[in-house]
Amino acid sequence: MDPKASLTAPNAIREMIRAGDYSGPTNGFVPGFTQCNIVILPKAYAFDFQRYCQNNHDCCPLLATSVNDGEFHLDALGSNIDIRHDVPKYRVLRDGQLVDEVTDIKQIWREDFVTFALASYVAFDYVLNTYGFDTTTSSPAHTLPMYISNIPSLQVGPFKSNKVVCLRPMDTQEIIRAIQAGSISRVPHGIPVHFGNPAEIGINNLQKPNFGDPIFIPENKQPVFWTTSLTAHLAITRAAPELCIINSPQHMLVTDRPDMDLLIQ
Amino acid sequence: MDPKASLTAPNAIREMIRAGDYSGPTNGFVPGFTQCNIVILPKAYAFDFQRYCQNNHDCCPLLATSVNDGEFHLDALGSNIDIRHDVPKYRVLRDGQLVDEVTDIKQIWREDFVTFALASYVAFDYVLNTYGFDTTTSSPAHTLPMYISNIPSLQVGPFKSNKVVCLRPMDTQEIIRAIQAGSISRVPHGIPVHFGNPAEIGINNLQKPNFGDPIFIPENKQPVFWTTSLTAHLAITRAAPELCIINSPQHMLVTDRPDMDLLIQ
Repeated sequence: MDPKASLTAPNAIREMIRAGDYSGPTNGFVPGFTQCNIVILPKAYAFDFQRYCQNNHDCCPLLATSVNDGEFHLDALGSNIDIRHDVPKYRVLRDGQLVDEVTDIKQIWREDFVTFALASYVAFDYVLNTYGFDTTTSSPAHTLPMYISNIPSLQVGPFKSNKVVCLRPMDTQEIIRAIQAGSISRVPHGIPVHFGNPAEIGINNLQKPNFGDPIFIPENKQPVFWTTSLTAHLAITRAAPELCIINSPQHMLVTDRPDMDLLIQ
Repeated sequence: MDPKASLTAPNAIREMIRAGDYSGPTNGFVPGFTQCNIVILPKAYAFDFQRYCQNNHDCCPLLATSVNDGEFHLDALGSNIDIRHDVPKYRVLRDGQLVDEVTDIKQIWREDFVTFALASYVAFDYVLNTYGFDTTTSSPAHTLPMYISNIPSLQVGPFKSNKVVCLRPMDTQEIIRAIQAGSISRVPHGIPVHFGNPAEIGINNLQKPNFGDPIFIPENKQPVFWTTSLTAHLAITRAAPELCIINSPQHMLVTDRPDMDLLIQ
């Protein structure tokens, strides 16, 4: 895949966003190219956050960290990324509280900022599609329902949170094949944490997700749960650093890296 | 595998080392259980070092970071590890220079120490054996020859080094099967960086390795090179932090985690 092949290519999408011409969600854009959730923190919090991801890599799979403090490129994910502009919508959090939602963070960029890119659950939707799963089960364009489970992540410094999980309805054969697909592909967020009774992981009402949209579960299917990187966002809200910038939900960084390419490193 | 099954089990070996009864190399001990290279740094260097490993995970695959500063346990790798005692021999480096070699670091332990555990190339020897490779090609008990290549790692902060590679002689069919074994198992250090002409990666005399023992290369085989975590040790020597503790070569931390277990997370 050539990341510059067409106007629907990652590079072209980032240029459009950088120019201020698009500020919407990135769901369904160039399936097969990795989209990332972004966390930008002052350096004082960066080591603990990185260590949190390292110790909770099932729910917070870190794909890249900016190499130098204050650096706004992420060469590991694309040659011309400028993280100050290339996300369609950012949330600015002060002391863990949302204070602003903006399309550009150049004005508030600081020399001590460190950028983290985390894998999104969307990559596994792409894998499931590749393995022939029905798009009603798994569509990269749909926002899955997400729930705050009762499964704790390992606390590191001020960062702790229960794991945020997403739901895909599947029948028994699909569950088996999905676990195979996750194991073979080794895509982040590819192995479920639970299926069957949602109450066992602290979810009492499937129709009221904490994030995303509710989903219809046919009678022959059961709810299957996978971790999502929203766990990291939740941990940050609770750690309440003086300043933090994250992408708005579903407004992710579109990278030049094919999902499959990340897996053969 | 039960890590407490016998006196040759990881737990028993660590107890023997902790009691001061053994201070020799760990090569060949309980094959199949992960052995780690250890790096202990003051917190001031820890974030850059972790970021260095993150950005160079092919040569510095980080298996665990201590969760809290000053913590001497590594629960991710074994329930009762005490990193102040459980490595048979430590090297103490001040400003990058070796100043002491000791069997215990309790006396010099500091509350700002952060411990990093990196995967060793030995795990891939175990995988190769599992896949039926001859032990003359690959024996977990033998120390492979290692060379400082001309392949740079990505610099992060003060940490930079050319990649240190180890050599295993293989014929064409073995090279193909070894790349398959590395790809399927996804064990750290499992994919070669080069084979054929050593000069292409800056190695001019195979009989004079920078570390480890020379190896005989039969006429029908060619040298194949994989990264090793010594890259991290070399980067530390060059960064010259005020204080750093590493394990002596071949004197590694024996963990409770089967090599294969680390791969299904």
